Amino acid sequence: MNIGIDMMGGDFAPLEAVKGVKEYLSGHNIPATLFLIGDEAQIKELLKQHEVSLENIKIIPSEEVIGMQEHPTKALKEKKKSSIAIGFHLLASGKMDAFISAGNTGAMLVGALFSIKALEGVIRPTISSIVPKADGGTGLLLDVGLNADCKPEQLNQFAIMGSVYAQLVLGIDNPKVGLVNVGEEEGKGNLLLQATYPLLKENKHINFIGNIEGRDVLQPKADVMVCEGFTGNIILKMAESLYEISQQRKVKDDFFERFNFEIYGGTPVLGVAKPVIIGHGISGARAFMNMIHLAQIMLEKDVMQKMKEELS
Amino acid sequence: MNIGIDMMGGDFAPLEAVKGVKEYLSGHNIPATLFLIGDEAQIKELLKQHEVSLENIKIIPSEEVIGMQEHPTKALKEKKKSSIAIGFHLLASGKMDAFISAGNTGAMLVGALFSIKALEGVIRPTISSIVPKADGGTGLLLDVGLNADCKPEQLNQFAIMGSVYAQLVLGIDNPKVGLVNVGEEEGKGNLLLQATYPLLKENKHINFIGNIEGRDVLQPKADVMVCEGFTGNIILKMAESLYEISQQRKVKDDFFERFNFEIYGGTPVLGVAKPVIIGHGISGARAFMNMIHLAQIMLEKDVMQKMKEELS
Repeated sequence: MNIGIDMMGGDFAPLEAVKGVKEYLSGHNIPATLFLIGDEAQIKELLKQHEVSLENIKIIPSEEVIGMQEHPTKALKEKKKSSIAIGFHLLASGKMDAFISAGNTGAMLVGALFSIKALEGVIRPTISSIVPKADGGTGLLLDVGLNADCKPEQLNQFAIMGSVYAQLVLGIDNPKVGLVNVGEEEGKGNLLLQATYPLLKENKHINFIGNIEGRDVLQPKADVMVCEGFTGNIILKMAESLYEISQQRKVKDDFFERFNFEIYGGTPVLGVAKPVIIGHGISGARAFMNMIHLAQIMLEKDVMQKMKEELS
Repeated sequence: MNIGIDMMGGDFAPLEAVKGVKEYLSGHNIPATLFLIGDEAQIKELLKQHEVSLENIKIIPSEEVIGMQEHPTKALKEKKKSSIAIGFHLLASGKMDAFISAGNTGAMLVGALFSIKALEGVIRPTISSIVPKADGGTGLLLDVGLNADCKPEQLNQFAIMGSVYAQLVLGIDNPKVGLVNVGEEEGKGNLLLQATYPLLKENKHINFIGNIEGRDVLQPKADVMVCEGFTGNIILKMAESLYEISQQRKVKDDFFERFNFEIYGGTPVLGVAKPVIIGHGISGARAFMNMIHLAQIMLEKDVMQKMKEELS
């Protein structure tokens, strides 16, 4: 498998990306060849400095960088020689199997949506986030911001894609799916949720447990938590702030430590044909390593194919 | 001033209500006469047992109780002699100036909306919640569940009512108003928020600071946080769960202690002509005392009149 990494994306590029690559390559199980896309001279120099073996590495030179603040569509169109544009070109043409970047999030989303095909039948791809649970477990929240306006059928697809991801990547057997709502009873919530509930209830591909409330988000009640992107974004950012707050207040507790989302790496775009993983701008070496591992797991477990089967 | 208390509402009625009344009456500043509405024999017996002076007390006998699970509109209609129905009757007829209950929330809302007039010009009343801030301060979030579907003009009114409440009751000078959204820039969010932003920006009655994100909810960025009731309900319940989680995990920190919403007492319905305060079902003595104090402050500061002025 060939996993591509945008070496120019993120606030500490390319140094932290190189360090992440080194960490990955020092592991036991290295089935992947890493395509490092970026400034060739800089990357070579850093690989040498950090004594990284070139055995599983292929350097793909790029000549431009899409800045964090650039307009995604415009930048992708105009900067054909940027690391992100080259990455999507290689992914779309089949030369790479997965693509990772901590660069311009918008450009990564546009690339994922328009360079790579959506899985057959998927109305719109989605992005999810891991949510630490108070009992030490891990949940999945989706959508977290890509789809602010959703139809019931989209939420139903999020439930399926989230279940497959939770099972294959997070290792949760028969994940419990909850619909994020303002009350537990069927019939609660706005028109979207009222129309979504019966779809989830009848969906044989998922283990639907009903509505969950705000109080259940950080508790183990549901493993896969489904909502439209507006609500998901508010929840995710509020959750993220718990790490900052626990640091400010010097609270030492494993649970709050786990809201340090930097360490997880990135979030994959779900519903597209190949793994595309978008990292935080502040990604450090550990985040890059985790993203490479995530791409590897998604390819090994054939997550995309499983989603396709469950969606049909 | 006459403050009415439903002695039969809440999980520990009438005992905790009696204890709360006792605590209130043992304070320095007792400008209010308390109307205790409920089972006369029970209340008298408990007042005697707890050696409560009858000086500032008037007992109003009721013969029925609206249960926590009863249908609000139906129960209010059929149980005319219930403590809640009697309370709203006395409030509407001017014999009481404020009404407090930890009973059936729906019945309290229906009573507030239909027995008491809305303030002139108010499209729909709202309910708010205090939100502890990580720096030790306190914010106000509204709406937290009464109005799931809102128009921009309603959010604009929430901003005004919230600002008056934050200033007069929470003691925050020139409170900063933030619109809860998925990004900071103007133009972010769904159609409702895009249309609300300019209204808030042009509103001379408030100190609008722009959009705030999920990460800002528990931080001091904004004092008054405006959203529709769906988002507000999810945020509030997620915040409430932080207390439970900190207890589970034995985290000792003042900030997380403050998410124990039981101690605050209740939330007033804003936008109606008189203070109506709705308590948690689990309200204890301290919550009842706090609710009586809140009613007193709202009457002393003439919060309703100030809202009316600012809204016009």
